[in-house]
Amino acid sequence: MSDIAVILPDGTELSVEEGATVRDAAFEIGPGLGKDTVAGVVDGELVDKETPLHDGANLVIVTDQSDEYLDVLRHSAAHVFAQALQRLYPEAKLTIGPWTDDGFYYDVTDVDLEKEDLEAIEDEMRNIIEEDLDIERTLIDREEALEKYADNPYKRDILETEAAGDDELSFYQQGEFEDLCKGPHVDSTGDIGAVKLLNISAAYWRGDEENDTLTRVYGTAFESESELEEFLEMREEAAERDHRKLGQELDLFSIPSVTGPGLPLYHPNGKKVLQALETYGRDLNESYEYDYVETPHLFRTELWKQSGHYDNYQDDMFLLDVNDEEYGLKPMNCPGHATIFKQGSWSYRDLPVRYAENGKVYRKEQRGELSGLSRVWAFTIDDGHLFVRPDQIEQEVEDIMDIILEVLQTFDLDYEVALATRPEKSVGSDEIWEQAESQLKSVLEDSEMDYFVEEGDGAFYGPKIDFSFEDALGRKWDGPTVQLDFNMPERFELSYTGEDNEEHRPVMIHRALYGSFERFFMVLIEHYNGKFPTWLAPEQVRILPISDDQIDYAESIKEDLGDFRVTIEDRSWTLGRKIREAQTDRVPYMIIVGGNEEEAGTISVRDRKERETQDVSVEEFRDHLVGEVDDQRVEPGFLDEE
Amino acid sequence: MSDIAVILPDGTELSVEEGATVRDAAFEIGPGLGKDTVAGVVDGELVDKETPLHDGANLVIVTDQSDEYLDVLRHSAAHVFAQALQRLYPEAKLTIGPWTDDGFYYDVTDVDLEKEDLEAIEDEMRNIIEEDLDIERTLIDREEALEKYADNPYKRDILETEAAGDDELSFYQQGEFEDLCKGPHVDSTGDIGAVKLLNISAAYWRGDEENDTLTRVYGTAFESESELEEFLEMREEAAERDHRKLGQELDLFSIPSVTGPGLPLYHPNGKKVLQALETYGRDLNESYEYDYVETPHLFRTELWKQSGHYDNYQDDMFLLDVNDEEYGLKPMNCPGHATIFKQGSWSYRDLPVRYAENGKVYRKEQRGELSGLSRVWAFTIDDGHLFVRPDQIEQEVEDIMDIILEVLQTFDLDYEVALATRPEKSVGSDEIWEQAESQLKSVLEDSEMDYFVEEGDGAFYGPKIDFSFEDALGRKWDGPTVQLDFNMPERFELSYTGEDNEEHRPVMIHRALYGSFERFFMVLIEHYNGKFPTWLAPEQVRILPISDDQIDYAESIKEDLGDFRVTIEDRSWTLGRKIREAQTDRVPYMIIVGGNEEEAGTISVRDRKERETQDVSVEEFRDHLVGEVDDQRVEPGFLDEE
Repeated sequence: MSDIAVILPDGTELSVEEGATVRDAAFEIGPGLGKDTVAGVVDGELVDKETPLHDGANLVIVTDQSDEYLDVLRHSAAHVFAQALQRLYPEAKLTIGPWTDDGFYYDVTDVDLEKEDLEAIEDEMRNIIEEDLDIERTLIDREEALEKYADNPYKRDILETEAAGDDELSFYQQGEFEDLCKGPHVDSTGDIGAVKLLNISAAYWRGDEENDTLTRVYGTAFESESELEEFLEMREEAAERDHRKLGQELDLFSIPSVTGPGLPLYHPNGKKVLQALETYGRDLNESYEYDYVETPHLFRTELWKQSGHYDNYQDDMFLLDVNDEEYGLKPMNCPGHATIFKQGSWSYRDLPVRYAENGKVYRKEQRGELSGLSRVWAFTIDDGHLFVRPDQIEQEVEDIMDIILEVLQTFDLDYEVALATRPEKSVGSDEIWEQAESQLKSVLEDSEMDYFVEEGDGAFYGPKIDFSFEDALGRKWDGPTVQLDFNMPERFELSYTGEDNEEHRPVMIHRALYGSFERFFMVLIEHYNGKFPTWLAPEQVRILPISDDQIDYAESIKEDLGDFRVTIEDRSWTLGRKIREAQTDRVPYMIIVGGNEEEAGTISVRDRKERETQDVSVEEFRDHLVGEVDDQRVEPGFLDEE
Repeated sequence: MSDIAVILPDGTELSVEEGATVRDAAFEIGPGLGKDTVAGVVDGELVDKETPLHDGANLVIVTDQSDEYLDVLRHSAAHVFAQALQRLYPEAKLTIGPWTDDGFYYDVTDVDLEKEDLEAIEDEMRNIIEEDLDIERTLIDREEALEKYADNPYKRDILETEAAGDDELSFYQQGEFEDLCKGPHVDSTGDIGAVKLLNISAAYWRGDEENDTLTRVYGTAFESESELEEFLEMREEAAERDHRKLGQELDLFSIPSVTGPGLPLYHPNGKKVLQALETYGRDLNESYEYDYVETPHLFRTELWKQSGHYDNYQDDMFLLDVNDEEYGLKPMNCPGHATIFKQGSWSYRDLPVRYAENGKVYRKEQRGELSGLSRVWAFTIDDGHLFVRPDQIEQEVEDIMDIILEVLQTFDLDYEVALATRPEKSVGSDEIWEQAESQLKSVLEDSEMDYFVEEGDGAFYGPKIDFSFEDALGRKWDGPTVQLDFNMPERFELSYTGEDNEEHRPVMIHRALYGSFERFFMVLIEHYNGKFPTWLAPEQVRILPISDDQIDYAESIKEDLGDFRVTIEDRSWTLGRKIREAQTDRVPYMIIVGGNEEEAGTISVRDRKERETQDVSVEEFRDHLVGEVDDQRVEPGFLDEE
């Protein structure tokens, strides 16, 4: 038998016999590792330890010390759930049950489950873990597999689609339970330290609304009870901060059913936050010499054909007929901006041309996928499009990175940077793609920023640098993006006159700072738990007169605070109630004024951290506010200075 | 024979015999007037002098001294055109030929006319005027009329629709020419002092794109050559100022065919003007305590059914299907705002609630009616919607009138005010309409403003006060509007808790200051002839270095001018050419710097009125700019102060 070579994470080659599995390779490295092997990662894919290796494979051995171990454990927990379900509801049919970022789910059918039923299932799961059943992989031939699932059209569907080419199919068995599954799994149900079923919802077979409705049960699993506890606490905190809950409590936005799904309405409080974001973005853009433009939301599909969106994006577009001509709501702002550029005649001296627009775009998500502000039909991108000479790309991308870093810093957001490369569905030549990717790589290398490569995750028209940020709860969200585009200038036949008097193609750069205002707003609501920094807060100061006698004095203070967003609490409540209400509304500063303050011409200032100071002059407080807002400080800080 | 009474403009009653005509009544007043009578206005409608009067008719006698005389004369000029056309092109078919605000047109077909052909027709018209042919009215019975038009389906269409009820039909004859026509006309072709054919375009029969395409010939006529001359000069001036022409020259906006008709794209220069307008409007709104909100452009038609727009506006709406549900682009912002209001729970103390949004709306105009920014598919209304208690209506409408007057004054626009009352197609009870109309009337009376009543011109949901403004060329445009609405709060079941603890309906007030940004922008472009006041100008200052040696100095001046919109002309042109270019671009101020200025650390300032002053410090000029912009002065005025 001849040998093959596999590549280990440190770059060394390991020679193994042809037909060797992941575990065989691990034993080759050392018998301890061989014994500890739970699974492997082969060419980026998490696989069972019995998976045979091919020559040149990149191999990572997964043990219970690996990052991937939790995924494997949760995958097994999904099987334990399915086993418990079948014990309690033998009629239930299983479909799929993958691991997720924070647990697992299993989509099931032919069973009528309510949230109250989950506890009993969870108890049975604990029994199964207690039973410490071996989890064993077997290979079964196609005919036998089809027979096993004679009554389960979903599993048969999998056998006839994803697994259509496989003669032998892998099943995993634990006790009386078995499931068609590619794995990998832990060795025994006893390896699962702690489980919890979390929720129940409706889902569609293969995520398609046209298909059968299934019941999705969400759960999670950890190696230990303490880790589960920590997770559940964090989850509760996240639920407290849920932007849909806070959005209603703080009267920021609503998505009533009469107006349509995924089409949010911003109430005055929400719009005030958005306006502060708009102004901040506009100042940034103008300081980097971007010019604002404005384009409509509706365009002839001729434009979308020209841009390529019609071919690549049509299913997600809102299309309509007008006088027998087809029109589409814009899913992106770029073709409109390219069209504006095309109206001008440009010399090499005029470039770079930088357009900015807070443009609302429309993308038809499945209704089941819509959720609060995180997945919507209509959202506003703080879009920027640059038309540059090839020799200007690096400088411009560098400047964009500077703006992005400033934004992330202002909002106190940690971030990760990824270079997303050519996807399967794409337009443009190999040469163009390589050129574009190498330029972005070069900027990233020069910046000495840590970044990773997301293969195949680029836009269909070019590679991009994607920022994702991490909020106060450690959750990651899509953030700013910089995208090179050598394709759209071709399609729109854009040009400028070079120093050589010849016509040249400019390069287009797409960039967004917040990305979608909706998504960013959602992140900020949850990141700050509704306690917006003073510069963003819809209501910056609330004046609480101790009695109605101080209403006039309160009015004069409001006047003195000029353009700040100040209200007066003029309801006939006790001071205690007024303070509690302001606290609930997360107002950064309260000004409390009674007879003494009025007489002395001073104010008492209390912040939402429940710190209070007395005998302050309005001027002193106003001067502080100006500084706090101008510097975009994250926390109210007047009382820090006392 | 019994007598009837007609009412004269001064309110007196005139008794005439039953069956008496307009001219008979004029003779009754005096034989001189009888002889001079050209036509009459009966109950607001301009009619032939032979029209019989009915009891109680309001009658105005039209002579060649009346305002209406020019309309009559132009109507006759349209016939003279038709006669000339038939002499030169006997195969041409006539359709309709009315007078307009500034002349007349005639829609014809079966004739191939180019603009070059108009001169010969015009010559023939002058011959006909020279021939001084009597214009005579005859009544012809239906059968004979139908026979006359055996070959003309358009005239037959009129006979079968508008004139379907008439047994006798009025024709006007002059020489060999006759035309089906309700009149009135002057007595003889010789009464027409001066004629001019102006233009030729395509039109649709009855203005409907689905119908036959016709050729429309535009012309005008006056009592004298000198009046015609004056009109043509004004028209040339207007053409010079045409916003479509200036929009391109000053690179303000474009409406390229690939993006769709009536869907304008704002270029950076145009958007800068819009931004200045937005900021000015926002400051005004905020000083009157309006809160901005934001609503999407797409809504389920359920919303439009609730608001009544679906029934009353459907033909003008852009509708589309999404997942088998019908959606519509918003033709108005109000239902979105009513929905936001509905999400809250309100006490009488919370009212008035004032929402503002610069919301883009979509209305499907016929493509043939679209023109530049004046008629578009997508336009942005600076909408305000107030939810008020009935006892707050007058105060709020008064405040709105104050804002409107401030706006009109800022832009140096003359205006007229009209109270528009209940239209034929409307919703809501008689009582509600009367209540609403009387409240608006009362505010107008109290304001001591001159106003007139436009019967039947209200919105379908309530009466309104409409402002129209007059630009520098004396043309009138639709302007700000205030509309009361007792209907939408009903439809949306809006309510607030009164002092009595019962639920009450608020009243809704719709208001716009600019109206449509697009229309207002168009008016401003033409009103100012592109010479925007400094506070609106896309480019406020251009620095012209005399040679490349002063580029650095120019940069430092630009820096010192901070946030103003300043550019540097760095092309290697002569100073003369640089000045001419800045003049063409209508930049309010040029700063000219040569070696002397650089050495002295001063600047020379030149304004677009070609006034120049030297040895100025940058600080002095900047201080002036701050004042000029803050006060929104209409003309650059730094040099006025020298």
